[in-house]
Amino acid sequence: MAGELLDGLTSDPVRMGWMQGSPPPPEKVLLAARADHMRFPMIRWSYSNMRQFVPTRRVAASGEGRPFERALRPDLADVSFVPLGGDDPVAFGQSLAEAFTDGILVLHRGKVVLERWLGVTGPQTRHIAFSVTKSFVGTIVEMLADEGRIDPAAMISAYLPEMAGSGFADATVRQVLDMTTALDFSEDYADPESGIGAYSAALGLTPRKPDYAGPADLWSFLPSVAKSGDHGRGFTYRTPNTDVLAWLVSRVEGRHFADVLTERLWQPLGMLGDADLIVDQAGSPFAGGGLNLRLEDLARFGEAMRLGGLGVIPAGVVARIASGGDPAHFDRTRYPQLPGWSYGSQWWISNNAHGCFSARGIHGQTLWVDPAAEMTIARFASHPTAANGANDPLSLPAWAALADALSR
Amino acid sequence: MAGELLDGLTSDPVRMGWMQGSPPPPEKVLLAARADHMRFPMIRWSYSNMRQFVPTRRVAASGEGRPFERALRPDLADVSFVPLGGDDPVAFGQSLAEAFTDGILVLHRGKVVLERWLGVTGPQTRHIAFSVTKSFVGTIVEMLADEGRIDPAAMISAYLPEMAGSGFADATVRQVLDMTTALDFSEDYADPESGIGAYSAALGLTPRKPDYAGPADLWSFLPSVAKSGDHGRGFTYRTPNTDVLAWLVSRVEGRHFADVLTERLWQPLGMLGDADLIVDQAGSPFAGGGLNLRLEDLARFGEAMRLGGLGVIPAGVVARIASGGDPAHFDRTRYPQLPGWSYGSQWWISNNAHGCFSARGIHGQTLWVDPAAEMTIARFASHPTAANGANDPLSLPAWAALADALSR
Repeated sequence: MAGELLDGLTSDPVRMGWMQGSPPPPEKVLLAARADHMRFPMIRWSYSNMRQFVPTRRVAASGEGRPFERALRPDLADVSFVPLGGDDPVAFGQSLAEAFTDGILVLHRGKVVLERWLGVTGPQTRHIAFSVTKSFVGTIVEMLADEGRIDPAAMISAYLPEMAGSGFADATVRQVLDMTTALDFSEDYADPESGIGAYSAALGLTPRKPDYAGPADLWSFLPSVAKSGDHGRGFTYRTPNTDVLAWLVSRVEGRHFADVLTERLWQPLGMLGDADLIVDQAGSPFAGGGLNLRLEDLARFGEAMRLGGLGVIPAGVVARIASGGDPAHFDRTRYPQLPGWSYGSQWWISNNAHGCFSARGIHGQTLWVDPAAEMTIARFASHPTAANGANDPLSLPAWAALADALSR
Repeated sequence: MAGELLDGLTSDPVRMGWMQGSPPPPEKVLLAARADHMRFPMIRWSYSNMRQFVPTRRVAASGEGRPFERALRPDLADVSFVPLGGDDPVAFGQSLAEAFTDGILVLHRGKVVLERWLGVTGPQTRHIAFSVTKSFVGTIVEMLADEGRIDPAAMISAYLPEMAGSGFADATVRQVLDMTTALDFSEDYADPESGIGAYSAALGLTPRKPDYAGPADLWSFLPSVAKSGDHGRGFTYRTPNTDVLAWLVSRVEGRHFADVLTERLWQPLGMLGDADLIVDQAGSPFAGGGLNLRLEDLARFGEAMRLGGLGVIPAGVVARIASGGDPAHFDRTRYPQLPGWSYGSQWWISNNAHGCFSARGIHGQTLWVDPAAEMTIARFASHPTAANGANDPLSLPAWAALADALSR
């Protein structure tokens, strides 16, 4: 594939000229019907413009939000670190394009100390968050659990009778939250016959084959996921868990997940802008990855978590998330770059000395909270490889180096 | 069709239960693949939720907008009028549901004196404006003409070489603005073989037939419209004129029409909220009818026009629009309910004693400016009949009666 020859600089979407002009030259038009919006290098444009390809639903800001103060520190671009598996140090500022970064904000003590925009991405851009979306969902479930409206020990089918007979039926809410469900579902993005392929077909984010006769929305798809093994034995990352959680939230709250997200987080946290939540053809939210939001609003979520919830998210919920997940459940062979980590409540927990925790999206989208360093990092990216393992070598040591520099 | 038995009350989308529940019952799910979103009675829900069905692009508000003051006058609901062609007076408040109204704001001297929301439509709803969109486009073209950036006397092909060979090639900008172009294009919504049927297929607002091989976006479709007769002889309402104007604006301004709309009107006029502009698969705007906006922002556009442009739209542009169009070009047999009217700059001009002018959408969307009565009315509706002739009998006398009541 020609795209594989492109790096973070040569794949810059401005340089590529995607969708520039009226009309754009034919070879620069991106079509959802060809799934252009989901293929590299076109994703370098489309991930900042997803609502032009697919149906979305508004997550409404209150209009009362105020931007973070800026206290920019030009020296941070020169902070250097050695990539995981590498030998030579690189400067943080130089690493951004190499990491296919579209935008990054580093906050220290609540002020933006570094801000960079690349390609077609800017402060107003609603960039797709992919699996970072999951951490919003998990946080809302924990909030409802804290209020006693959801019992984490109850089985999913107690809330969602539709799940009877599915692999989710006898999973507890906690098991779904922590992704310790045992499902007959493979999240192998490279295999179109995998579970995630069937999930994608149901979701309809890309065109279906003409003879497709499977589930046509997530509400139909999720009950079709079968069980394989025993729940609660270990963490296995499977996106449909999150869609079940969003469904649970809708059932308990009696309204669309987008509206719950609006009321529970978007407006009380003072998000600067509306977000765009991708929906499938029946209006079901793509809760596993469909949130498109401003980078500063992603940072705002991180800051709220860093600061104990700011009265919007109960402090107990934040504490549970920040220290949650059972490290014994974490497969160290599967995540060699994440030693000692755990996964819980739809968040990734480092269990390191700084108490860092993170929301992670498949093409490099990141929310990184470092309580000890009083640092929050929000990053959008459109990395060609759909795997955090491709992003971590340049990211994890960079975050540590920035924390070190800011703590000095 | 069962829908035809429903009236404004029985077709209320809350009562119908469209898309309520997670999931909604199967018979209450609206699917774009079935074109549900474009068929009555489902339009009573979908016209307030279009972005859930089709791709859209953001028209961004500045965040600095402020709502109109409210000075509500409950007496206005009792104002009575005799519908065109009717015998008995009806009370304005009673007529709203009968007119399939989704929301209405009446402003007098810049304050909201009447405000009603029906069905699923509320202050935050972005409701589709359909052809009201055209008046935004026409106003921007007039602004660019006022700046000397567009010459109304120049031929379209001088700006858009793509139009060479099409029916638009030797039409002047003024002729396109005033819809006095002579095109081989029928705007008969009831005839799927009409020009508007081909336009719709190119636009892709509803699913195409599997064997469809025609133009797949407006940029491909517009140059395919042929000429029939001589330009400049008379007004004939044809939607593609507006899409050509939007293309012209993009060419002259060098950016997407949505961005021009943002910069030229949305932000300087202090619109309260982002709007959602429907785009086709190639990203071309549905400028003929695809704007989805808050009702109060529609009213804000009307107020700006009523007040001479507020320094955003040049006063000369407003004056030209308010008095524009050649009444001799207006076909009185075709518009028996609009005696003495004219059409110019993508606006409908009453030429009546009050100097009223209007933006009109096909299912009852209306912006009505009455300078003499210092009154502006903005209305969203989802009338089952796609024809202004179906809306006018309850609307035109109502606006006159309200003007009379407010002037007393």
